[in-house]
Amino acid sequence: MLEQMGIQAVEAKKVLMVASTEMKNRALTKIAEELVANTEKIVEANQLDLDAGRKNGMAASMLDRLKLDTDRIAGMAKGVMDVVNLPDPVGRILNTVQRPNGLIIQKVSTPLGVIGVIFEARPNVTSDAAALCLKSGNAVILRGGKEAIHSNQMIAQIMRDAVKKAGLPENVIQLVGDTSRDSANELMQMNQYVDVLIPRGGAGLIQAVVKNATVPVIETGVGNCHIYVDWEADIEKAVEIVFNAKTNRVSVCNAAESLLIHKDIAEKVLGKIKERLDEKQVELVGDDASRKIVEGIAPATKEDWGTEYLDYKMSVKIVESLDMAVEHIYQYGTGHSECIITENKETAEEFLNRVDSAAVYVNASTRFTDGGEFGFGAEIGISTQKLHARGPIGLPELQSFKYKIYGNGQIR
Amino acid sequence: MLEQMGIQAVEAKKVLMVASTEMKNRALTKIAEELVANTEKIVEANQLDLDAGRKNGMAASMLDRLKLDTDRIAGMAKGVMDVVNLPDPVGRILNTVQRPNGLIIQKVSTPLGVIGVIFEARPNVTSDAAALCLKSGNAVILRGGKEAIHSNQMIAQIMRDAVKKAGLPENVIQLVGDTSRDSANELMQMNQYVDVLIPRGGAGLIQAVVKNATVPVIETGVGNCHIYVDWEADIEKAVEIVFNAKTNRVSVCNAAESLLIHKDIAEKVLGKIKERLDEKQVELVGDDASRKIVEGIAPATKEDWGTEYLDYKMSVKIVESLDMAVEHIYQYGTGHSECIITENKETAEEFLNRVDSAAVYVNASTRFTDGGEFGFGAEIGISTQKLHARGPIGLPELQSFKYKIYGNGQIR
Repeated sequence: MLEQMGIQAVEAKKVLMVASTEMKNRALTKIAEELVANTEKIVEANQLDLDAGRKNGMAASMLDRLKLDTDRIAGMAKGVMDVVNLPDPVGRILNTVQRPNGLIIQKVSTPLGVIGVIFEARPNVTSDAAALCLKSGNAVILRGGKEAIHSNQMIAQIMRDAVKKAGLPENVIQLVGDTSRDSANELMQMNQYVDVLIPRGGAGLIQAVVKNATVPVIETGVGNCHIYVDWEADIEKAVEIVFNAKTNRVSVCNAAESLLIHKDIAEKVLGKIKERLDEKQVELVGDDASRKIVEGIAPATKEDWGTEYLDYKMSVKIVESLDMAVEHIYQYGTGHSECIITENKETAEEFLNRVDSAAVYVNASTRFTDGGEFGFGAEIGISTQKLHARGPIGLPELQSFKYKIYGNGQIR
Repeated sequence: MLEQMGIQAVEAKKVLMVASTEMKNRALTKIAEELVANTEKIVEANQLDLDAGRKNGMAASMLDRLKLDTDRIAGMAKGVMDVVNLPDPVGRILNTVQRPNGLIIQKVSTPLGVIGVIFEARPNVTSDAAALCLKSGNAVILRGGKEAIHSNQMIAQIMRDAVKKAGLPENVIQLVGDTSRDSANELMQMNQYVDVLIPRGGAGLIQAVVKNATVPVIETGVGNCHIYVDWEADIEKAVEIVFNAKTNRVSVCNAAESLLIHKDIAEKVLGKIKERLDEKQVELVGDDASRKIVEGIAPATKEDWGTEYLDYKMSVKIVESLDMAVEHIYQYGTGHSECIITENKETAEEFLNRVDSAAVYVNASTRFTDGGEFGFGAEIGISTQKLHARGPIGLPELQSFKYKIYGNGQIR
């Protein structure tokens, strides 16, 4: 069954990859209109998912993420319209050279082709991901979780109808109806049809995709983000940046999870940081040195250093040097976002160069690792791998390239 | 055992990724010098491999590829010196933006980290791959085939000693001594230490890596390359390009394997092409239509259309239209290199846009898909996947990037 979807996706891609910007924007506009026009149908389908969730004892926070109402559907439509306003990434001439033999070699951005997106409960991912793929000229096969299957199917059907009305093949957007593990595994190995897989969800999902996929994967998401307070830090900046990076939104991958403080500033700054974090009841766990400086820090276990809490909790460690901070990040970090607080520009530059993460900050909150905040307009996730895309994945990252070579009879 | 290599590679990478261009060039120069200085040792080690190969009935062509002598070792050293002269790809500022909140976001090229190269019998890959990885700031773990193990070990040891003498950690270059399938599989799943795998070899090797690797892979190599002779082709160009693309060097991935001819020019051009190919005794297999036009073409089976012959053999098909040519390429191509011969610029542009291959040509031999011919100076392979690198993989393709973000206290 999935193979048929693969064949259809490739057929649809052939049309979409050469479609004009105008045509793609028309389809996106139609999608946005139809999502709003069909609000009632979407809410009804969503109700089935919510009922099933409640029956299965789904947590209130999960039910909230699953829920769609008029406002949220309008938000989804607005998200699609935002993509209309982004520049078309397809067909950009990235480089042109003329070789001594007269060949003209042009490097041009092209769609990746067919993208598989495997995601968990949030049904708004369905329209987000489909809109970004469509604008970037990629056919998409969406495979959401069973918790949101009725919502996802309704949203996908509305989008497919809209795309067709706009004059593009409806199969540029397909949703896998089967939410079994088998269907996910099959999608992960459809190398003949699928060019790239993007998993969106928790660490378990991402690891399952990395482990089982033979299709190339853009790994996203897990962020055990560190802030290192250097001995030459501005204390006020340190306090506010740590507070913001930890508490602004705890459930996201760019939230800070671990605090490293240089021993020579620890006594001056740790108490103030703790006081500020106490306002939001952040639980601190730390090493012996930190626990000697301030009361109310529980002992950290080795697991703590490697944990992405996604909660009002943070680990604290006192380090002897920049070296030790960098080493700690190498050992426990996930390559997402790390920050140094320092007024010393050389120290900052050394940290930025030596820490091997997607986003490295000096004196700013790790919460800025985000497509919107970077000015990308929209993103399909945050890549923590080094191949192809790193950091926020916007429309340009959903492109491959090809070489067009113009000759007049050249041979070797 | 491989885990220890992984740990060592990461340690070495930390130094190499921030090493100066001067330091890296000094190490490369030392490698080139020491390879030449140790020619005798390398030849001796190579003799062991040649003896074993002969004993195991290795084909003469394989023995020739395996063989190292003074000239070939000098060639390897020259290859390393060529890399010295290429620009350093590390630390290039790819983009800088200032955001409304004052954050300065700089996108900077960085090494991928640790690269695993899995390759087959040719021992010169050992120095080639190591030199490209070193210059691009990447530690490398090399895993060659058992046929060349003595040669590879000697070359690797000489390079490691040279690197150490130049002042860099010797573990920037490591060779896996165990040539069992288990060691290859272990390397393919060392996600904790290895950032990227590059397989170099035949279709079997590449498929095994794609199938078993959990580490991200840059797929290389297989090229079932097509030439399409449009009805508005210049016949002279068609004849010479097909002849060159097929016979210039038959054993390489950018050699043409399949010829598609528009029905309206077939009678005029096929005979002339066959005549020219006859000079090199190229065997033609074709569809019924082609066999009716010219004598001496054997019938093609379905397998023929999908076969990369790597030999003096070519398949021929008469097509009704550009559409049919594009469809045939979609069905049987490997996304490597395809060419249209036409004097009509619009037809050419349509072919270049619709064919989804790494390199798409108008009126030039597919043999130009090569790092040297593209002006890259050197390459580690030809990528046929769309993620990250496509076409020749030069030094810039051996880079990832990171975002350096400069703030003065920004929070969200």
